[in-house]
Parts: sequence; structure tokens; C-alpha cells
Amino acid sequence: MKKTLREIADLVEGVLLGDGDIEITGVTNLEDAGTADISFAVPPHLEKAARSSAAAVIIPMTTTEFSKPAIQVENPRAAFTELLKVYAPKIMIEPGVHPTAVVGQNVTLGENVAIMACAVIDDQVEIGNNTIIYPHTYIGKEAVLGSDCILYSNVTVRERCHIGNRSILHSGAVVGSDGFGFVTIGGRHQKVPQIGNVIIEEDVEIGANTTIDRATTGSTVVKQGTKIDNLVHLGHNVVVGENCFFVAQAGIAGSVKIGNNVTFAGQAGCAGHITIGDNSVFAAKAGVIGNVPAGSFYSGFPARPHKEWLRGEASSNKVPDLLKKVKDLEKRLAAIESKS
Amino acid sequence: MKKTLREIADLVEGVLLGDGDIEITGVTNLEDAGTADISFAVPPHLEKAARSSAAAVIIPMTTTEFSKPAIQVENPRAAFTELLKVYAPKIMIEPGVHPTAVVGQNVTLGENVAIMACAVIDDQVEIGNNTIIYPHTYIGKEAVLGSDCILYSNVTVRERCHIGNRSILHSGAVVGSDGFGFVTIGGRHQKVPQIGNVIIEEDVEIGANTTIDRATTGSTVVKQGTKIDNLVHLGHNVVVGENCFFVAQAGIAGSVKIGNNVTFAGQAGCAGHITIGDNSVFAAKAGVIGNVPAGSFYSGFPARPHKEWLRGEASSNKVPDLLKKVKDLEKRLAAIESKS
Amino acid sequence: MKKTLREIADLVEGVLLGDGDIEITGVTNLEDAGTADISFAVPPHLEKAARSSAAAVIIPMTTTEFSKPAIQVENPRAAFTELLKVYAPKIMIEPGVHPTAVVGQNVTLGENVAIMACAVIDDQVEIGNNTIIYPHTYIGKEAVLGSDCILYSNVTVRERCHIGNRSILHSGAVVGSDGFGFVTIGGRHQKVPQIGNVIIEEDVEIGANTTIDRATTGSTVVKQGTKIDNLVHLGHNVVVGENCFFVAQAGIAGSVKIGNNVTFAGQAGCAGHITIGDNSVFAAKAGVIGNVPAGSFYSGFPARPHKEWLRGEASSNKVPDLLKKVKDLEKRLAAIESKS
Repeated sequence: MKKTLREIADLVEGVLLGDGDIEITGVTNLEDAGTADISFAVPPHLEKAARSSAAAVIIPMTTTEFSKPAIQVENPRAAFTELLKVYAPKIMIEPGVHPTAVVGQNVTLGENVAIMACAVIDDQVEIGNNTIIYPHTYIGKEAVLGSDCILYSNVTVRERCHIGNRSILHSGAVVGSDGFGFVTIGGRHQKVPQIGNVIIEEDVEIGANTTIDRATTGSTVVKQGTKIDNLVHLGHNVVVGENCFFVAQAGIAGSVKIGNNVTFAGQAGCAGHITIGDNSVFAAKAGVIGNVPAGSFYSGFPARPHKEWLRGEASSNKVPDLLKKVKDLEKRLAAIESKS
Repeated sequence: MKKTLREIADLVEGVLLGDGDIEITGVTNLEDAGTADISFAVPPHLEKAARSSAAAVIIPMTTTEFSKPAIQVENPRAAFTELLKVYAPKIMIEPGVHPTAVVGQNVTLGENVAIMACAVIDDQVEIGNNTIIYPHTYIGKEAVLGSDCILYSNVTVRERCHIGNRSILHSGAVVGSDGFGFVTIGGRHQKVPQIGNVIIEEDVEIGANTTIDRATTGSTVVKQGTKIDNLVHLGHNVVVGENCFFVAQAGIAGSVKIGNNVTFAGQAGCAGHITIGDNSVFAAKAGVIGNVPAGSFYSGFPARPHKEWLRGEASSNKVPDLLKKVKDLEKRLAAIESKS
Repeated sequence: MKKTLREIADLVEGVLLGDGDIEITGVTNLEDAGTADISFAVPPHLEKAARSSAAAVIIPMTTTEFSKPAIQVENPRAAFTELLKVYAPKIMIEPGVHPTAVVGQNVTLGENVAIMACAVIDDQVEIGNNTIIYPHTYIGKEAVLGSDCILYSNVTVRERCHIGNRSILHSGAVVGSDGFGFVTIGGRHQKVPQIGNVIIEEDVEIGANTTIDRATTGSTVVKQGTKIDNLVHLGHNVVVGENCFFVAQAGIAGSVKIGNNVTFAGQAGCAGHITIGDNSVFAAKAGVIGNVPAGSFYSGFPARPHKEWLRGEASSNKVPDLLKKVKDLEKRLAAIESKS
């Protein structure tokens, strides 16, 4: 891929600063940028960008002077993302069913579907147009996959689960494993059949080796636009709203209801049967043990409003000093008492 | 599936309240229940159940009046579980070896075993009656699987490991990966061969993408009736007792010995070479760093008796107030000192 | 396998104590050792070793008297490791491509490579000599695997990733899944293409179901000799130095730079864009939120120097006592004030 800086400026609808004729062959970060690459920078990284080897840099509209050829845009990160799409190495996947793939009975395949080597599609599955199924992925009976999905290798979608259009499931992700439900009778744990399913809406991304359990009855639901990182766990009957983020290794216990635009940072967890309001954020390693109102920012264990947590940390740090002060007070008071 | 309420009352050996002729076509939770569904309720959810759309509700024997058709039983959850088994959609898996499955040399298959598409059974494996192996599951050499097991897709059971009767391994579970053992010589980590195995006893359930490492020498053991959720880690040479629970993302380091009926809640962890007594419970995110006597309920990091942890939390919350009080005391004392 | 104790003493270059003619048929830990097994012991386990059923014990050079046949060596654990290698049951894997494996176009296979049943090697892949690929493992286009590697079952190596010589990838490991990168525009999360790769250097071990994301641009790197346990997450653009340890369920967010000989214990985590100096150690469940100098030992959340953390824990434990003391001081002060 080779484009002039002028062509790139047009592409991202930006303002060209400097020589528009230079040719750009790659798009990368500042550290790795070579002399034919374009990168991007926002404050406080502009100076570092100027010192980098990059041929040109995408900068904010508010940066009016720059020592290298540059393109000014409103949102440098978004423009950079656009360029990455253009320069991304294309992985060509042939449509069609590979001879070693196994497709069951009464399966409905849309146009341009690719079922790669050794993938297994069980009976009565429906798959929409342009969806790609990588090797060793298993789609259980009566599952429904939308169009334009990518399911990477070793993914499992168990029976009767639904995956919405344009969703991406990374390698090893499991959708529809049994929920963790038991009735203990006489000290022995009897399995509660998990007869529900999982519904993944449109534009959802599910990370590598992430697990989403099917509902006991009804559905575990992940609403549109939500993005889930690697090794995340969502328990049975969880309902996740739209456009949420779950960072790696977050875990949500059964029957939790989560609003829209909620973020769980890495290794955060949430106990079962809890309701989380819209636009809430949970810091890394936070442990939620009660309902949380909309718009909250919680930290720590048990999770509490972040400011409260900060105050708690600050006051904890003053305890050693407090110990000394109290010792001192005791001495001084004893001295007064002994006098009187 | 369609049964009258009277038939269901007989099935769960309960007492019918109201019209026994109504027909029940589904079993589900209160939120999702439609007008031909049966659900269950225990206090404090009885009123919600009465207001639900459910056609009928399974209630405790102690609830003698109810505004809907109902069935009284000693344990509503257990009766509901029985009904779920009856109403569960049947997944029909044909016994036999799929033509794309690969079965090695000297493999012993019981009656009615199903080896689904692209499953790979290596040499000298033994598999008991009625066991089902889903696609892309790999059973290593000389492994032994009991009867009536289900191994879902993408499971790995490494060489020489044992799986007891009626055990269930969910998708992506790994049994018998090498333990994490190294000898560091001259700053380089030399691998310690992990030549032991894993023994999973009867009636064990292992969650999706959970990993259980083989022993360095001897066996990593999970005893009968223990249930393990998703993304749990059990290190090499761990011995887990009977009827334990490991909730999602719990992690147990090597050589830990765990008694019977122990529960590790979500994201809890345990350091290596520790002994945990019977009937102990560890709260979510607890971090165990020393031996724990039987019957303990521990929380926090480092894990301590839950009541102690609660007192610690309560006293921590009083530190800001304490800071003020000490400041006030200092002033008042200084005032007295300046007078005298 | 059968060797005399004298042969074993020669093998580990140790000093024989006692009868060199006894025959040793197994190598195992003290608990499991039978009367024809050899084990090893270091203080304080020497007495337990003497009481064990083991036929012989490998002991430190400094232990000059022992009540059983023994072999003295400088490093008993290292000698035991050597013996484990000798006595390890050999898993014979036939070189060659299994008829059910799928090998794409323009693939370069070294000598003695084994591609087991149902493994899928995509186009333009290079694989070095003696490397073993287990069933259901997928190697993406243009990936490069070194020689003498073992990739167990259900592993994924995505397109253009590199695996160095003698590296071991355990079942379910995922190398090269997309990094978790999004640009949020108008409340919707747009995917940032992840066009970089992952470079795993030589002698690296990657645990079962561990995930290592590809870089947005450039490379995620794990340098030689680093050992990674199960269910660990390394985010995009992370750079890990040589000879590090990542214990189970540790998680490292994007763009973290980690020096050499660093250890993250189980369930520890590190926030993004952080730099960690050489030879640092992070205790289990530690949560790193800022840069850490070389040679640090950090604990807790937020992670701090371990001694500081210990002092914090100790002073926290004194708060209940402090509450009582302050109450007492208030009373005594009030008594003095009321007098004057």
C-alpha cells in the first residue's frame, strides 16, 4: 500500500501541513515508525512525535505548527483508525465450505459464507451472509448467526444461542456453556438443567477464551455494541446493556442486570443478582456487592464511590502517624493527671 | 411438552392447590413466565410470583394460601429442578463414531458412546458406556473416561488422565496440562518434567475454559461431587475433596489440600502448599495465604475470619472521624498545658 | 525404567551414601514414594524423607548422615529434575502429517515435524524441525514457528505471529487475538484494527487457555526464557523481558513494558502504559497502577513496596485499639476540663 500524504489528508478529511507529495507506505505507532510511515499524536505526545522517525503525523486541529509534514484533524485517534483500516494487511478468506468442514442437516447458509477447515456446524443452524467461521469452531444445533460475523478458531456457540450481525468472537470464546446452578440435597449438589440460551446482539465483540453461560431459563443477553475483552466471565441470566466495556478477566456472577455504557475494568467482579445503573464505571479489581446507581464511579472491595475509596486510602495512610500522636497525647495527659 | 398441573403435582409429589386441569407447556423463571408456564417461588418472592403471568407456581408447604393455581412442596427449588429435567429440550446425539472423528489404536469404547465430528481419541484410550464427546475434543493417550460423561467441544484431556462416571466437562476445559514447575539455574528457568496425571472422580462438573494441571509426580485429584465453574485454575498436585464448589475465576496454587464441602467464591485465590479444612467458605476475591481450620468462613486479603474482616472494615471506616477527634484532643490538651 | 542407585548417582554426579546396588524403578514426591522409588528432600523436610517409604533420597551435600540410602548433590531439586527427565513416560509422536490434518499452500515444514490429526496449518506458514502440533491446533497465515516446539491441542496462533525455538504452548492458548482497542465516536465503540503481531522468543512456555493479544501496530513481545502459567492475559503491545514468570490468572494491560527476571504472582494485575524495572516481584493479587523501579517487591492494591504494605496492615490492625484509647483520652480530658 502506498499513498501520498495529500491523498491521505483527503481520505481523513484533514488539513495538510507541509509536503503533500511524500509517499506513505505504513501506519504505525510513534515508537515503531520508520521514515515512510505515518503516525498520530495528541498532547502531551506532540514533542515526542516531532522527534520520531515518522514521515508524517496526524495531529489535532488545535496544533497549528509542527516541525514535520502533518495532517490536522478534529480527532487524531479516529483518523488514525480510518487509516489502519486502509493499510491493514488483507486476510483473504475464500467463501465456501472447506471439504474437511462438517455441515449438519437443514443448515441455512447465507451468501459468501466461509466455513474453514475442520469447522463443525450442527443441524438446523442458520448463518447470515458473509460470515466467516475459522477452523475448529463448533456451532451447536439450532444456533443462529447473523451476517458479517467473524468467529475465529476454537470458538464454541452452543445449541440455540444467537449471535447478532457484525459480531466478532475471538479464539476459544465459549457462548452458551451451562450456567453454574445446583440444588444441594443431603449434602450432594444436584445439577439444575440450564435450558435457556444466550442472545448476543449486533456489533458485539467477545474476547479470546471468554465464557458466557446460557440462562437456566430464558436468556443471558449482551446488547448491541458491547465489547468484551479476553478471559471475561458472564454468568447465567446476566443481562448486559448497550455499548458496555468488559476489560480482561472481569467476572459477573449470575442474574446481574447491567445498564448501558457501563465499564468494568480488568479483574473487576460483581456478585450475583445485582443491578448496575447506566454509565457506571468500575475500576480495576473492584468488587461490587450491592446495587449501584447510574453514573457511578466505584473502586475497591467492597466497591464504593471512588472519592470515598480515595479518602479511605488517604486516612489509612495516616494511621501510623495517628498511633504516634495518640501515644504522645497519652503521655502528656498522664503528666497533667499526675500533677493534679 | 404439555402436562396438566395435576400430572405435575404427582410428578413432584406435591399438594395441588386450585385447578388441576390447566395445561402447562413450559417451565421458567418468574420474569419470563407466560400464561402457560409454571415457575417457583420462595419467600420473599411469593407476592411477586402471585403478580406474575405464570399459570401456576411451585410454593413451599408452609404457604397455605396463594392467589394462583399452585403446588406445595417441601423444597420448591428441587421440585423446579425436577420439572426442568422433564421439560428440557432434548438434544439428540446419535451414538457412534462420526466419519470425520479420529480414533487411535487399541481404543476401548463402551456401548452407545458418541464420538462427534472431528473429535480425536488417541491410542489406548478407554471410554465407558453412553459417554458423549463433542467436536474438536482431544483425548490423549491412555486416558480413561468413565460412563455417562459429557465432554463438550474443544475440551482437552491430556495423556493418562482419568475422568469419573457422570462427569461433565464444558467447552474449552483443559485437564492435564503441565504443572508450572521450574528450577532456576544460573538465572534460567529449567522445566521440571510433569510426569504425573489428573484424576477426576465421579459426578464432577468442570466449567468452560477451566484448567487443571497434571501433577509433577503422583496425581492432581478432584474428588466426587465437586462442581467447578468457568475459568478456574487448579495447580499441580492440588487435592480437592468431595462436594466442593469453585466459582468462576477462582485460582488454587500448587500442592494445596482442600477438604470436603469447601466453597471458593468468584475470583478467590489460594497460595501454594496450604491445607484447607472441611466445610470452609471463602468469600469472593478472598486471598488465602495460610492453613485454614475446618468450618471457617474467611474474607479479604490476606484472608481472615469473616467477622474479623467485618470489624476491620468497620474500624477503618472510623479513621476519618478518629483523625478529627485526635486533632480536637490535641487542641484541648494544648490549651490546658498553656494554662498550667 | 530401572536403574541402580549407583547408576543414578553417576547420572546426577552425586555422592552415593549406602547400598549402590538397590534398583530404582520410579521417581516421585515423598508422599507418593513406594519402596522402589527415589525422591528428594531439602531442609526442613529431611526427617520426613527419612520416615518416608522411599528406597532412596537425593539430599544436599551438607547433609552428611542419613538413615536411608541417599545421594548427596549441590542442588537436590535440580538433580531430581534431571531424573524426572530420564524416568518420564515417553509419549511417542510419529513425525509426519496426519491424513486428517489440513496443510495450506506454500507451507514450509522442517524435518521430523509432526502435524497431528485435524490440525490446520494455513497458507505460507513456516515450521522448524522437530516441532509437534497436536490435534485441533490452528496456525494462521504467514505464522512462523521455530524448531523443537510443542503446541498442544486447541491452540491458536493467529496470522503473522512468531514462536521461537523450543517454546511450548499448552492447550487452549491463544497467541495473536486482536488487542482490545476502540475509538468511541458518538457513544459507539468503533474497532481500531489490530494490524500488528505477536513475537514469542525462544524457550518460552505459555500456559493453558492463556491469551496474548497482537499489537495494534508493531509487535507484542515475550522475550526468551519467560514462563507463563494458565489463564494469564497479556494485552496488546505489551513487551515482556527475559526469564520472567507470570503465575496463573495474572493480567497485564496494553502497552506495559516489563524488564527481565520479573515475577507476577497469581491473580496480580498491571494497568496499561506502565514500565516495570528488572528483577521486580509482585505478590499474589497485587494491582500495579504506576511505574515500578528495578528490584522492587510490591504487594496489595494499589501495589506498594511490600514492607510499606506490611506496615499498613499492621497499623490497620491497631485501629480498634486506637478507637478505645481515644475514647479513654476524651473521658480523661473531659474530667480535667470539668475540674478547671
